[in-house]
Amino acid sequence: MKIKKRKICIVIASRANYARVKYLMSAIKQNKNLQLQIIVGASALLYKYGNVIDVIRADGFNPDYEINYLLDGENLITQAKSTGIGIIELSSAFLKLKPDIVVTVADRFETMATAIAASYMNIPLAHIQGGEVSGNIDDSVRHAITKLSHIHFPATNKSKQRLKNLGEESWRIFNYGCPSIDIIANMDLSLPKTDFFKDKGTGKVFDPNKPYILLLQHPVTTSYGMANRQMVETLEAVKEININKLVLWPNADAGSNELSKAIRDFHNQNITLPFSYIINFPPEIFLKLIANSKCLVGNSSSFIREGAYLGTPAVIIGDRQRGREHGKNVIFSKYDRHEIFQKVNKQIKRGIYPKSFLFGRGNSGIKMSKKLETIKLNIYKELTF
Amino acid sequence: MKIKKRKICIVIASRANYARVKYLMSAIKQNKNLQLQIIVGASALLYKYGNVIDVIRADGFNPDYEINYLLDGENLITQAKSTGIGIIELSSAFLKLKPDIVVTVADRFETMATAIAASYMNIPLAHIQGGEVSGNIDDSVRHAITKLSHIHFPATNKSKQRLKNLGEESWRIFNYGCPSIDIIANMDLSLPKTDFFKDKGTGKVFDPNKPYILLLQHPVTTSYGMANRQMVETLEAVKEININKLVLWPNADAGSNELSKAIRDFHNQNITLPFSYIINFPPEIFLKLIANSKCLVGNSSSFIREGAYLGTPAVIIGDRQRGREHGKNVIFSKYDRHEIFQKVNKQIKRGIYPKSFLFGRGNSGIKMSKKLETIKLNIYKELTF
Amino acid sequence: MKIKKRKICIVIASRANYARVKYLMSAIKQNKNLQLQIIVGASALLYKYGNVIDVIRADGFNPDYEINYLLDGENLITQAKSTGIGIIELSSAFLKLKPDIVVTVADRFETMATAIAASYMNIPLAHIQGGEVSGNIDDSVRHAITKLSHIHFPATNKSKQRLKNLGEESWRIFNYGCPSIDIIANMDLSLPKTDFFKDKGTGKVFDPNKPYILLLQHPVTTSYGMANRQMVETLEAVKEININKLVLWPNADAGSNELSKAIRDFHNQNITLPFSYIINFPPEIFLKLIANSKCLVGNSSSFIREGAYLGTPAVIIGDRQRGREHGKNVIFSKYDRHEIFQKVNKQIKRGIYPKSFLFGRGNSGIKMSKKLETIKLNIYKELTF
Amino acid sequence: MKIKKRKICIVIASRANYARVKYLMSAIKQNKNLQLQIIVGASALLYKYGNVIDVIRADGFNPDYEINYLLDGENLITQAKSTGIGIIELSSAFLKLKPDIVVTVADRFETMATAIAASYMNIPLAHIQGGEVSGNIDDSVRHAITKLSHIHFPATNKSKQRLKNLGEESWRIFNYGCPSIDIIANMDLSLPKTDFFKDKGTGKVFDPNKPYILLLQHPVTTSYGMANRQMVETLEAVKEININKLVLWPNADAGSNELSKAIRDFHNQNITLPFSYIINFPPEIFLKLIANSKCLVGNSSSFIREGAYLGTPAVIIGDRQRGREHGKNVIFSKYDRHEIFQKVNKQIKRGIYPKSFLFGRGNSGIKMSKKLETIKLNIYKELTF
Repeated sequence: MKIKKRKICIVIASRANYARVKYLMSAIKQNKNLQLQIIVGASALLYKYGNVIDVIRADGFNPDYEINYLLDGENLITQAKSTGIGIIELSSAFLKLKPDIVVTVADRFETMATAIAASYMNIPLAHIQGGEVSGNIDDSVRHAITKLSHIHFPATNKSKQRLKNLGEESWRIFNYGCPSIDIIANMDLSLPKTDFFKDKGTGKVFDPNKPYILLLQHPVTTSYGMANRQMVETLEAVKEININKLVLWPNADAGSNELSKAIRDFHNQNITLPFSYIINFPPEIFLKLIANSKCLVGNSSSFIREGAYLGTPAVIIGDRQRGREHGKNVIFSKYDRHEIFQKVNKQIKRGIYPKSFLFGRGNSGIKMSKKLETIKLNIYKELTF
Repeated sequence: MKIKKRKICIVIASRANYARVKYLMSAIKQNKNLQLQIIVGASALLYKYGNVIDVIRADGFNPDYEINYLLDGENLITQAKSTGIGIIELSSAFLKLKPDIVVTVADRFETMATAIAASYMNIPLAHIQGGEVSGNIDDSVRHAITKLSHIHFPATNKSKQRLKNLGEESWRIFNYGCPSIDIIANMDLSLPKTDFFKDKGTGKVFDPNKPYILLLQHPVTTSYGMANRQMVETLEAVKEININKLVLWPNADAGSNELSKAIRDFHNQNITLPFSYIINFPPEIFLKLIANSKCLVGNSSSFIREGAYLGTPAVIIGDRQRGREHGKNVIFSKYDRHEIFQKVNKQIKRGIYPKSFLFGRGNSGIKMSKKLETIKLNIYKELTF
Repeated sequence: MKIKKRKICIVIASRANYARVKYLMSAIKQNKNLQLQIIVGASALLYKYGNVIDVIRADGFNPDYEINYLLDGENLITQAKSTGIGIIELSSAFLKLKPDIVVTVADRFETMATAIAASYMNIPLAHIQGGEVSGNIDDSVRHAITKLSHIHFPATNKSKQRLKNLGEESWRIFNYGCPSIDIIANMDLSLPKTDFFKDKGTGKVFDPNKPYILLLQHPVTTSYGMANRQMVETLEAVKEININKLVLWPNADAGSNELSKAIRDFHNQNITLPFSYIINFPPEIFLKLIANSKCLVGNSSSFIREGAYLGTPAVIIGDRQRGREHGKNVIFSKYDRHEIFQKVNKQIKRGIYPKSFLFGRGNSGIKMSKKLETIKLNIYKELTF
Repeated sequence: MKIKKRKICIVIASRANYARVKYLMSAIKQNKNLQLQIIVGASALLYKYGNVIDVIRADGFNPDYEINYLLDGENLITQAKSTGIGIIELSSAFLKLKPDIVVTVADRFETMATAIAASYMNIPLAHIQGGEVSGNIDDSVRHAITKLSHIHFPATNKSKQRLKNLGEESWRIFNYGCPSIDIIANMDLSLPKTDFFKDKGTGKVFDPNKPYILLLQHPVTTSYGMANRQMVETLEAVKEININKLVLWPNADAGSNELSKAIRDFHNQNITLPFSYIINFPPEIFLKLIANSKCLVGNSSSFIREGAYLGTPAVIIGDRQRGREHGKNVIFSKYDRHEIFQKVNKQIKRGIYPKSFLFGRGNSGIKMSKKLETIKLNIYKELTF
């Protein structure tokens, strides 16, 4: 008798999402008992966030749905409304795809849209990176998604414990490490040649043969209205450090337009300085850039996650990652140009840290796919207390 | 110096919602440091669910917004999409009203829409009836709303403890009992005269002077597709009991159309039997009917909550309230006409139970309004573990 | 070389829609150069409007999409918003189905949603029943849809001329008669046996062997708020005529809830009178009922259209069809119980009228399907003046 | 007795919209029998389209509503869906504002959203710039909006005649010229000083004292997918002309991202050439730039409209304005760099043309506001044939 393949539907709504699930997607695709379904939406479809959809296709995946559900004009209300539109659109896709399990990642509003749509359609939900604490408002959303999820793939032991504390049943929780580590553990970390960077972005053409600081700072949604000033502090700080700077554009959050404006204005006022500004890279290039940077500056969670595995020195700025579990490679700074300046300098001098396996060893995707093959699907959850 | 009044925005999305917050609304209205804002939406606007909006107006309240956001055709996908539409619409209203606190009740999808909209707009959210466990899928939604809420008004001590277990900070949690008890504790429980019922509903005209069974059964969303059969079991069971039956129409849930059809069909096939079918009543009439019934049959949470305070015997059917905290007045039954028949008979013979204060003593609204006056508003939550 | 089949996508959003396109659908299905795509949505999915979706399936069609996009609470704003939701949902379906031509019917807001979605996605639009004038506000919508349409299938010569007057190019306009006539021209008009009606609806069981008046009155959207009173006039008028009455439920329009309430109230107050109330029938049964009625009363356009072909006497009430082209079988009345009473009596005495071919001879579907096979598809329209 | 002021609600959804209605808004504001209501939405709220909202505020207007309803990722489907979202949002605003008349402009999808929302809510709609023919697909939308409108303010006599031909009643049509002419007729046309341009945009800083070509090219929605190549032709053509070039960014249409990319790529590859790229200006600055340009290149309708009044030579490229009424200042070109090059050169040599009053004399706003004061409001339209 032919066993029916389980249909696993992965929703990718941003470039960060894709970096987290790429190896899981490959593992599902190669698993003969599973069928991979892919929905790409929101900022993953947008030119201004780097056309992640093209990267997904280039990697050999064939999305079932492409759904625009991001309202233009990133602010608090578009974030709420985009969640609403996302639910409307994703539920239609789920109705057609009839997945056995929906997989979602992390804690952004697009993730919430996925969780709500799956939840009200009685589809079991697997959540990657639950149980983390970053110390900002995303925590509430992340824990809310945990309560709507039926299978948990936390990335660390502390996160796993937190999920248990939240009352989730043990048999639903599996720490296989973070699937994003799979990528760096299995790739060549050397940077592309100079030519690759030639017609990318604005500012100075990036030179991969020179030491550089990598800067990526996302807006913090609870201090909406201050993203511009916060970014200015960082830019002014690193401006004083005599080394090349590579600045990446932020995610689609409330405040990202404002923050992008800070970058553009800074660029226009400092046209001759050694800054390169690039919208986006395929995840692999982004990781190569992390691996080879003298110091990571900003608040990207990759600086913490992949940074721990790689040991790259990082200065994490502001509240966005406050309280998040991290390796020794990370030190924190306020939004203050002097403090940032000093800490970045210190980290550059310190140099590379030893590898940490806090976020896993690089085999998460394959382990998750095996678990999704056989785990009992039960949407009735019980609190353990 | 004039103190700015705190604006408290209450979202009423169903008749059950209104019954829960009516006394809180009165208390806010009379509190000179608070300003009451009212949004009425979803099924609270619909004729088929009893035009709750008219009752609200008749009670002297003046809604700021009336918002239709319920997609017709109650099924799983309309439930998901209605949540999405609700978020889109409620966020617009919040943008205009600029409330200092949004108040929401219980665990339905309309409540989730309120929670998401407030959450992404950085508005502190107060949640009534968090921490409860009913044993069905609403639990996941209720706990997810807890994680998005900043002020908790659980209705019992067990619920309060559960909120703490879920990692909510103690200073955010207040057990003032359930505000729905406020109503029964302060009202005349005698039934209206016969005339009142004369041109209401279909079937036999309801006679308030004769003993009767009150029947209200909502569809259970996780067993979608079985609501019709489940309702038939209940109707066939009480049909065999020689006493008048008053049947109320269910809430707007996935499955309610199906269940309504069961009622209509039963009515057409049993046209001469002593059944009265009525769409809806103002909350007070509903409570009078509970107070004077010989036995409550179905799965309305009011049978458990107000039922405990009143001591009215109740037979709760199926999974919807499985595991919910309850007084001694309640016994449970499966969807089985024989079991239901026997248990209802037993309860009728048993008669009235002693009053229980499990769900409070009837002063919740005034206590909540005082707390909302002064509580620190802080949207940064921390897990306690 | 294999010719690619043209994909023809038909959107059915109400029971009236389906009656208009059923024969066209059959003709497309049998045409080897065409591929039929079916979207069923809005009130065609709802129990309260007769589950048209079940009828469609029973007729052997297999819908590609079922889309709920009707907001509950029929009023002016839900009508506007349902149009918006319809556009959002239909455009997703069009993106997946990639039709070569979209076919839409008549003038309701669901039709407008179809027209807008197809229009902005650059898909040629074929419109059935354009160019008609009914004298109410639907005219504006109908003519607006004409301006968005690329292929016109008007139902009469006057309508065809009006389309030309509106500046539409001649080569885009084809009067093949109304496809709804196809149905009556090809069917057995005798009524089902008594048994068929036994467990349908409320009120007296309908007796197909006795003479009867058929009553169907839709709310008029521009006199929103008066639908209830208007319906009462009609019901009170026919109440005085000593013959059975069969009352059908109205369409999903602003005002339909209000009008339905009038019917329910009338039923409750006149429980013993010879009135039967039935929600809906398959289109064929509806036509049999028209064919065999002594008099048609209300404002259904079928009374005018199919009524002309059949010659059934009709009294058309109010503004909804004011100015619409009609056969000799029709006389008009104001919303006045005395006038209605007299005119219905007069028509019953007059009896059946001769057949009129004003709306075609019953071969529209096959002619349309042939035209859709070969017509040039050009979305650049030019005004002829 | 106090006369109730008529509430006139103007919906501004793009920078072009605002340029068209600014003087009408002033006239309404100053008219003591009218009350001005303002809704600003869609691209008029976005940084990337120049924050028109800030300009509106700076001009002393106080918008009642700001509504984001543009879905990010300009393509055919987001255009359709944005229309849907626009209808949902605008109808909510209309419900609160209860305008007596809604005013809308031109032919974009945001205009359609306004027309549909007003139409289904039975609010009389005044349409500016109806009856025009541009020869592209916008024509269908414009004529559809005409059929939904109750008061017409066409900009030319030919347009007025076309509205009559379309069957609109004469008493609803008033040619007061185009309100956009009001602005240029009443303003100082001299350019701002050099300093004004110093920190605006990228590329060379624009020098207002040197001769220049003004280039503004919008994507054409029916040739979606070709906008990039079309823009390249224009840029390559003007590159060969030895004079400064000022390039403005396009509107939010399907294809605008693609077209913007062409500009960015061209800029990166021609970094040293005399091109200035600026996102947007207040309408007045835009007009000053038109007035003082040696030649206008692209497809902006302002080049035709205000260009006629000013006599500025213009080369209109491609289909977007094909067939639109125009003055002698305009010549047309295909998307061909050689043809564009020659025609622009010819126009620069030819120099300024005589003033034309084809689009009015600059008193439209005041005339419209007077008409809106007194015109009969009747939503029942009749075709004149």
